[in-house]
Amino acid sequence: MQLKKRDTSFHAHHSPMGAHSSLTCGMHGANGGIAMEKGQPAEGGVFVGYEDANGVLHSFPFSGLSSAERERFVSGESVENTGKGVEKERLIPSRSISRDYRWATDTFSAEGLTFEMITPFFPLPDPDNSSASEQRFACCPALLVKVSFDNTKSAVVRRFFFGLSAGDTRWACHAAGKASMLTTRDRMGMSTLDEVESVIDFTIESALHRNHATPDFLLGKVAGFVATAPPRSRKSILIAVGFFKEGNATYGRKTRYWYNRYFKDLPDVLRYALKNADRYIAEAHARDRELDQARLSDNQKFLIAHSTHSYWGSTEWLEDNGEPRWVVNEGEYLMMNTFDLTVDMLFFEMRFNPWTVRNVLEQFVRDYSYHDRVFDPAHPGKSYPGGLSFTHDMGVMNQFSPPARSSYELAGLDRACFSYMTCEQLANWVCCAGVYLARTGDRDFLRRQRKILEACLESLQNRDNPDPRQRTGIMKFESSRTRGGGEITTYDSLDHSLGQARNNIYLASKCWAAYVALDHLFGLLGMEERQRAARSSAELCARSIVDGFDAERGVIPAVLEPGNASAIIPAIEGLIFPHEMGLTQVVSPRGPYGKLIRTLRQHLGNVLQPGVCLYPDGGWKLSSTADNSWMSKIALCQHIARTILKIKDAPRDAKSDAAHVRWQIKGSEFHACSDQFRSGVAIGSKYYPRIVTTVLWMNQKPG
Amino acid sequence: MQLKKRDTSFHAHHSPMGAHSSLTCGMHGANGGIAMEKGQPAEGGVFVGYEDANGVLHSFPFSGLSSAERERFVSGESVENTGKGVEKERLIPSRSISRDYRWATDTFSAEGLTFEMITPFFPLPDPDNSSASEQRFACCPALLVKVSFDNTKSAVVRRFFFGLSAGDTRWACHAAGKASMLTTRDRMGMSTLDEVESVIDFTIESALHRNHATPDFLLGKVAGFVATAPPRSRKSILIAVGFFKEGNATYGRKTRYWYNRYFKDLPDVLRYALKNADRYIAEAHARDRELDQARLSDNQKFLIAHSTHSYWGSTEWLEDNGEPRWVVNEGEYLMMNTFDLTVDMLFFEMRFNPWTVRNVLEQFVRDYSYHDRVFDPAHPGKSYPGGLSFTHDMGVMNQFSPPARSSYELAGLDRACFSYMTCEQLANWVCCAGVYLARTGDRDFLRRQRKILEACLESLQNRDNPDPRQRTGIMKFESSRTRGGGEITTYDSLDHSLGQARNNIYLASKCWAAYVALDHLFGLLGMEERQRAARSSAELCARSIVDGFDAERGVIPAVLEPGNASAIIPAIEGLIFPHEMGLTQVVSPRGPYGKLIRTLRQHLGNVLQPGVCLYPDGGWKLSSTADNSWMSKIALCQHIARTILKIKDAPRDAKSDAAHVRWQIKGSEFHACSDQFRSGVAIGSKYYPRIVTTVLWMNQKPG
Repeated sequence: MQLKKRDTSFHAHHSPMGAHSSLTCGMHGANGGIAMEKGQPAEGGVFVGYEDANGVLHSFPFSGLSSAERERFVSGESVENTGKGVEKERLIPSRSISRDYRWATDTFSAEGLTFEMITPFFPLPDPDNSSASEQRFACCPALLVKVSFDNTKSAVVRRFFFGLSAGDTRWACHAAGKASMLTTRDRMGMSTLDEVESVIDFTIESALHRNHATPDFLLGKVAGFVATAPPRSRKSILIAVGFFKEGNATYGRKTRYWYNRYFKDLPDVLRYALKNADRYIAEAHARDRELDQARLSDNQKFLIAHSTHSYWGSTEWLEDNGEPRWVVNEGEYLMMNTFDLTVDMLFFEMRFNPWTVRNVLEQFVRDYSYHDRVFDPAHPGKSYPGGLSFTHDMGVMNQFSPPARSSYELAGLDRACFSYMTCEQLANWVCCAGVYLARTGDRDFLRRQRKILEACLESLQNRDNPDPRQRTGIMKFESSRTRGGGEITTYDSLDHSLGQARNNIYLASKCWAAYVALDHLFGLLGMEERQRAARSSAELCARSIVDGFDAERGVIPAVLEPGNASAIIPAIEGLIFPHEMGLTQVVSPRGPYGKLIRTLRQHLGNVLQPGVCLYPDGGWKLSSTADNSWMSKIALCQHIARTILKIKDAPRDAKSDAAHVRWQIKGSEFHACSDQFRSGVAIGSKYYPRIVTTVLWMNQKPG
Repeated sequence: MQLKKRDTSFHAHHSPMGAHSSLTCGMHGANGGIAMEKGQPAEGGVFVGYEDANGVLHSFPFSGLSSAERERFVSGESVENTGKGVEKERLIPSRSISRDYRWATDTFSAEGLTFEMITPFFPLPDPDNSSASEQRFACCPALLVKVSFDNTKSAVVRRFFFGLSAGDTRWACHAAGKASMLTTRDRMGMSTLDEVESVIDFTIESALHRNHATPDFLLGKVAGFVATAPPRSRKSILIAVGFFKEGNATYGRKTRYWYNRYFKDLPDVLRYALKNADRYIAEAHARDRELDQARLSDNQKFLIAHSTHSYWGSTEWLEDNGEPRWVVNEGEYLMMNTFDLTVDMLFFEMRFNPWTVRNVLEQFVRDYSYHDRVFDPAHPGKSYPGGLSFTHDMGVMNQFSPPARSSYELAGLDRACFSYMTCEQLANWVCCAGVYLARTGDRDFLRRQRKILEACLESLQNRDNPDPRQRTGIMKFESSRTRGGGEITTYDSLDHSLGQARNNIYLASKCWAAYVALDHLFGLLGMEERQRAARSSAELCARSIVDGFDAERGVIPAVLEPGNASAIIPAIEGLIFPHEMGLTQVVSPRGPYGKLIRTLRQHLGNVLQPGVCLYPDGGWKLSSTADNSWMSKIALCQHIARTILKIKDAPRDAKSDAAHVRWQIKGSEFHACSDQFRSGVAIGSKYYPRIVTTVLWMNQKPG
């Protein structure tokens, strides 16, 4: 959608699928540009501009300014670079810039100049049952850029340009047939088939106004294409921007990018992207239309588009010994396949490429599962059988952790950041498997994981209580991996209301969902005894949550322990899984768990109040006792509220959507789409993939 | 030598040979540590310390402090980190630190703790005639570190440690038999066979005083080994610090590090280094003794040691299609085999591994030579036959330039930085070849390069004047590659006195040396006509320089053009080549060029005066008209002055050596050994390899 003039300055990822690379661009006066495997915007710049009749260059403000310069610029003063009294270049003023931000395109316009970044995405073909050409098309690590200049009102030839710097690297210039090509370190580069001059120099200005006669000055950090628009005409150039990492991409476990199967080097990538540009552009426009046509507000569409841009930037489609390995990196933290993110990105991946869900679940089983024992925190000296669970993540910064270990979890911590998330990741595996299996009907996967599902049930129940007679359906026993400490949840930076795992109603609602999923899956497998056991735990769990309801306050306290007064939104999270599994009865207020559903509806209605779980700006506050709210979880819970709990309040919802857009555009201007906000300002989980829970909104029925 | 207490704070490279990697360490309160292929100190730190009886950690100050902290620290205040009122760590005060800085070792001591970095170097075996085991030993990309702790006065066990951070990377911990091993990105790491605990954590303090129970916290940026010293004893641990880059190391031209032939990965490197530690340490100590025993002052020894440390850090021993390719990177600029550096590092390489000189000369002939035409700058429209020359460099930042192109040189510039150095690089090739051939007697190389030598003579003469009747032995014609501009010399950042190539007496003295070398080489080849031609040009050149002598001022002006009043030291540079070729008569005041020698002696005596070419501190100032002096050239010219021109003045020489040591220690404290200084402060060419011209001093005869 076309953004308001005051909202055009913010960074967004522009990324191919599965290449863990991005052309990050959009914030005025900030560094950005191309980078590979980086947890934040690149250190370079993007130079798009034109030359006026006096030879002055006018550029979009897409490179770093000093903070003083930036302040002057943003406040509307023109920033001029006067060399010996003669003005040579000028930034196009913020107020003149239009931005049309869509699901797969991002277009800036001003002063007759248009700069469009095209990042097509579409279902990634399952390597098990797709052709080489489909895979090649999908994994090609490139995006397209179109720069157009309207010279219709001018009687002279005018130059316009597109350039990049990638921080402290140098460039090489290739002449390859009709194509012009500029690359840096054989890893990143750009190419065009249009008629241009390729330049490399210290700055784009020194390239266009050079005092020497060598277009490609190999010490220069800026490279670009310069085109000319004839008088009385409009001219555009199409550029492929590509990435390529050869050989091993990861440590600890040697893998390479999947695209190595289909492309031999960066020039190959760039050539292919240009050759297939029409198909790519068609895909991008199809996505744009899809979002356009969704019956959602512009603010909602913005959040879907923005989160999708960031998601793809974190994705890494690898090949490990001939087999695919799907990894989503954790934004700025760069942890790999963090499971408590996987479970939230599940819905996006189920919509586009369910095989990546299966792939990650299998990776967890094969490489990152473990067995522990459990203990009662009141008597930590005595241990009981625990069972199967999964690690928090698979490594960090392309360094795979040793088997059965995450990079994150530490022993010996009692409900503090970096402790174990054993119970939560166990529930996550079951919930992901449940949704995957219910939606795909993949019987083969179901049969293969039968034993795992059995082990999950046993493990979940032991974490409730190893003694079946004392079970309540809720986690109360801690993993021996904590060595006498206590587990946490994904909300590691939040207070006890969401941070502590045991007796937590957020985790309880997920465990309930896991039991419900197991009930369903054992039913499919015809394992009646297990099914009964799972259902019994689900019922126990539901009852415990319902029993926790404090009728006086009208809420369920966050932790079902004496003295806890926090009220939290994520008590409802678990509802999404049976809903996405198509178990409509399970989430019906008139179904078998009707009392749970009705209680949660009452709870949510009461916490969604200003001063409790609403910020003054209308944004959602996950916990009444913590100023730390997570956009991915907000989007998820909004969907549950609207779709499952039928809690709608059009003016209130519109106000909160508007607030969340402001959080991203103003509160995370530099870091593209971010997750954790304190009073509307991103404080962590920046440049993050998880916010694609927004894609659930695409399923919302009107009314 | 043992440095004065006030002189212990400065960075030095600690590098294996040919791996373009360094453990840069030594400046108090500054970042540093391990990095590969980087033109400046790393962004990490080095953590060496011990724990006192109260559990407080005391560390050498080898990681970055904020500028405020650093100021307090350097001024002598103790820097304490108080966690909740309890002191947990303290930096060992600057004033307590001793530093023993030698040719191949660098040792810090304080408070019973000793930290020694051992960087053995020795002749690199010629791949053409050496065994695999010799090559393996020489190319192993590792250095050794020894940390000792004196616990003899204590009755309790005490811990001490060695740790590294490498900026924003994470670590992996390997258990491999007896060895403990910590690596980052499979590229850099450390290992020890001694009994230690391997730790990874956010800081070394959090690793030793951890509040959790996981020694290797995989999100940590700091990794290290923790050892224990029993009561009443002294304990030391030996650590190998290694580097490994797999696969292609360069772009434009695909090459890999030579060590890939002999090592399969980083663990292999680390194991080998530890296994062969005794041999490596013996080599290091042999070098230390050699320098110790040289009849030189401590200041001179310091400069030799410091420049050698920086040289190896810039070296890159590559394999290109099975053949060796020797590259020295240009310090902070990272240009590859910059020829005007090669010719200065010649003397160091001739001492240790002459084959690298041959290798670089052959690379220039095969890949980086070109033919041009020349023109008279008074009539730039008309061109004449020019001839063969060589590029300024072979690329930058591991990006090889296209054939016959440097990364540096630009067309269309008239005697400005980045113009061509055609004549100088031509003279450089001849001078290098002359020294190489005279010292090795490599007849095979001589025969193979016969045609090149002929082409060099013709080209040199055409740059004097294409019309033989108008020759003066001095370059007056410009290369057509400048496209009507004008050539420069290596002194690109200096004023016209050294920057302009034509009629420059610095370049003239090098051209003279080139003609003298050709005279000698054609003699060896029995090519009498060519020999006569070369000698004739040498004589013409010598006469022109002598004729340029301004008897009134007692100096030869820098540029033999009207109106030039600069006086420069490098007029004498050319003398080094015949001297190193063993042509003692040529450089004798009573020899065939006696008049030139005597005139240069007079010139130098007159410019080496305060206010002319001496700074107030006694340091040498290359040009009377520019405050920009280059340590590599100073060292070279000092050697020529003392050894060839017999200009000695013990107090003055001692004062200048002391000044140059201060320039490096105080004026380039962060950037290790640097080349360009303005009034004693490094302003460019930092972290630089070229200063090894100091090695010539090792040849000085006493008296």
